[in-house]
Amino acid sequence: MDLQCPAPHSRHETVQMAHGAGGVLSRELTRTVFLPSFGNSILDMLDDQARISLGPGKIAFTTDTFVVSPLFFPGGNIGDLAVNGTVNDLAVGGAVPLYLSAGFVIEEGFFFSDLTKIVSAMATAAAAAGVSIVTGDTKVVGKGQCDGIFINTSGIGLIEDRFDLSCKNLREGDAILVSGSLGDHGMAVMTAREGLSFQSEISSDTVALNRMISSILRDVPEVHAMRDPTRGGLASTLNELADASGKGIVVEEDRLPVRPEVQGACELLGIDPLTVANEGKVVVAVPQKRAEDVLRIMQGHEDASSGMAAIIGTVVKEHPGMVVVRTALGGRRILDMPLGEQLPRIC
Amino acid sequence: MDLQCPAPHSRHETVQMAHGAGGVLSRELTRTVFLPSFGNSILDMLDDQARISLGPGKIAFTTDTFVVSPLFFPGGNIGDLAVNGTVNDLAVGGAVPLYLSAGFVIEEGFFFSDLTKIVSAMATAAAAAGVSIVTGDTKVVGKGQCDGIFINTSGIGLIEDRFDLSCKNLREGDAILVSGSLGDHGMAVMTAREGLSFQSEISSDTVALNRMISSILRDVPEVHAMRDPTRGGLASTLNELADASGKGIVVEEDRLPVRPEVQGACELLGIDPLTVANEGKVVVAVPQKRAEDVLRIMQGHEDASSGMAAIIGTVVKEHPGMVVVRTALGGRRILDMPLGEQLPRIC
Repeated sequence: MDLQCPAPHSRHETVQMAHGAGGVLSRELTRTVFLPSFGNSILDMLDDQARISLGPGKIAFTTDTFVVSPLFFPGGNIGDLAVNGTVNDLAVGGAVPLYLSAGFVIEEGFFFSDLTKIVSAMATAAAAAGVSIVTGDTKVVGKGQCDGIFINTSGIGLIEDRFDLSCKNLREGDAILVSGSLGDHGMAVMTAREGLSFQSEISSDTVALNRMISSILRDVPEVHAMRDPTRGGLASTLNELADASGKGIVVEEDRLPVRPEVQGACELLGIDPLTVANEGKVVVAVPQKRAEDVLRIMQGHEDASSGMAAIIGTVVKEHPGMVVVRTALGGRRILDMPLGEQLPRIC
Repeated sequence: MDLQCPAPHSRHETVQMAHGAGGVLSRELTRTVFLPSFGNSILDMLDDQARISLGPGKIAFTTDTFVVSPLFFPGGNIGDLAVNGTVNDLAVGGAVPLYLSAGFVIEEGFFFSDLTKIVSAMATAAAAAGVSIVTGDTKVVGKGQCDGIFINTSGIGLIEDRFDLSCKNLREGDAILVSGSLGDHGMAVMTAREGLSFQSEISSDTVALNRMISSILRDVPEVHAMRDPTRGGLASTLNELADASGKGIVVEEDRLPVRPEVQGACELLGIDPLTVANEGKVVVAVPQKRAEDVLRIMQGHEDASSGMAAIIGTVVKEHPGMVVVRTALGGRRILDMPLGEQLPRIC
């Protein structure tokens, strides 16, 4: 019998439906785009599931899909955002992030040149955070059936038994800290989308926080809760903390770190910077007596803190479940969870 | 000071951009749609990451995004498909599936009535498979920016140390089995999409295989490899097994279980049923002397085998990396990995 090799197939400049069909072109996509960037001994097995060995301890498990538009923005792109976002969701639970999955939905006709940039940004971000991408999936949908590319990353980390961080754990008297300037990511994406320009460009703060968080937890294991203020911004995060714990939170307006250019862009667009997404900041609740120690550690991680870490407020027994801002002029206003959608597709 | 509660908000019939914004409506979506169906002690914590305790052993970790169109088809919908698909990807690695994540991308204007049906199907499928959905994420994109709803599920399972299943482990002389009829899922979706009808309706075979697989592994731990023939069908799966192991595979055409109505639909549409996706079947490679035992166990799991489990072929040392079909008339043809895209958005 005449056994011949499968026919060679042409190169493509753009992603075709067949790249998601589980056949020859799917395999080519995996071998020419994903493995060269992500490759590691687990992923390279190309089985339907990654097999990994973990040490003893609790596991943290999280998922996030990224649909940011535009895909490329000052300071990053959907690729590093997708890695850092999931790394951070693990880290704020007190976990050491270890393994990520990557699930792509790609629109037919998407340029390989863009896909390669995104995948390369994911690989760089993963290496910087010390995590491996160990399993993945790619679907291709027709023109007009998705907007370019969506990326899901799920992640696994290991939590040391001595840590028990949860939004429910806030205690009266806890100090509330934020690790740096607020609103950078959301306004970087918005200004890129709207074609606005400011004297100094606003850059996304997308960065992995796991090393800074690990330093904090090593020196200050008394931390009660951490959360990264992504969608809905600081306003959502503080309300979630207040709501979950049944405590009140008071923040001092004049301590909230917002860059002047972000403040300016927010005023121009009529947006409260406290509702704007961050992708490289963490909110920490810790007993007051350790607050300065946490602040100092934050300040020591320049890339994560942008030099603007601050103690911004206190947990109180009054107005349980509510967040109140004390203004510079001595007034008080409620900081509600945002109701509507000011900033769609920011992450 | 005058503290008032956040304003009450109206009910919606369809998903709004604000349901993905991380604010009040995101919380409402979680509390009214997801928690009532998925709720469990881990998910209910509503932290950014699920915290879970696993026994000792290796971990299996997998991800899959589902973009099937239409969303509802005979025998299932995107919801049970998304749960069963990830459960099966864990199970074929020899893992006991335990925890899933669910990441939704929803198009603005998607009906809550449809979302509720999908979420309810996910919950039912998860309960049937004995897994918990412990963490999730929802993004909403504008009209025309995705096609209805896409669902990513990632999953974690535990692998007993004595199992070492991998496509690389095929050995000369292994029998190749398939657990039931081929092509049902893909043709159910295609006929629903094309509005075709046949005398007997073709139903998707979407089902969780973990209990059947667990029975097989308990009684026949000698199994070398398992894989579920999803995208690209049996043709892709056999080629992946041959490729990864460097062995050849010969299958007997007259042993391939294909329902007459699926065969008819395939002929009508000009599709080879061996390239059509299955969502409730497993291909097993096992030493010949245990093949009948595996077959008997498959036949004992009626829902998973559709009464059509079969020993379909053998692993050979000839033509390494290639799959050959021996036809009923004694001819031989190469079964290539499918090149093109005959069946887009089938899962």
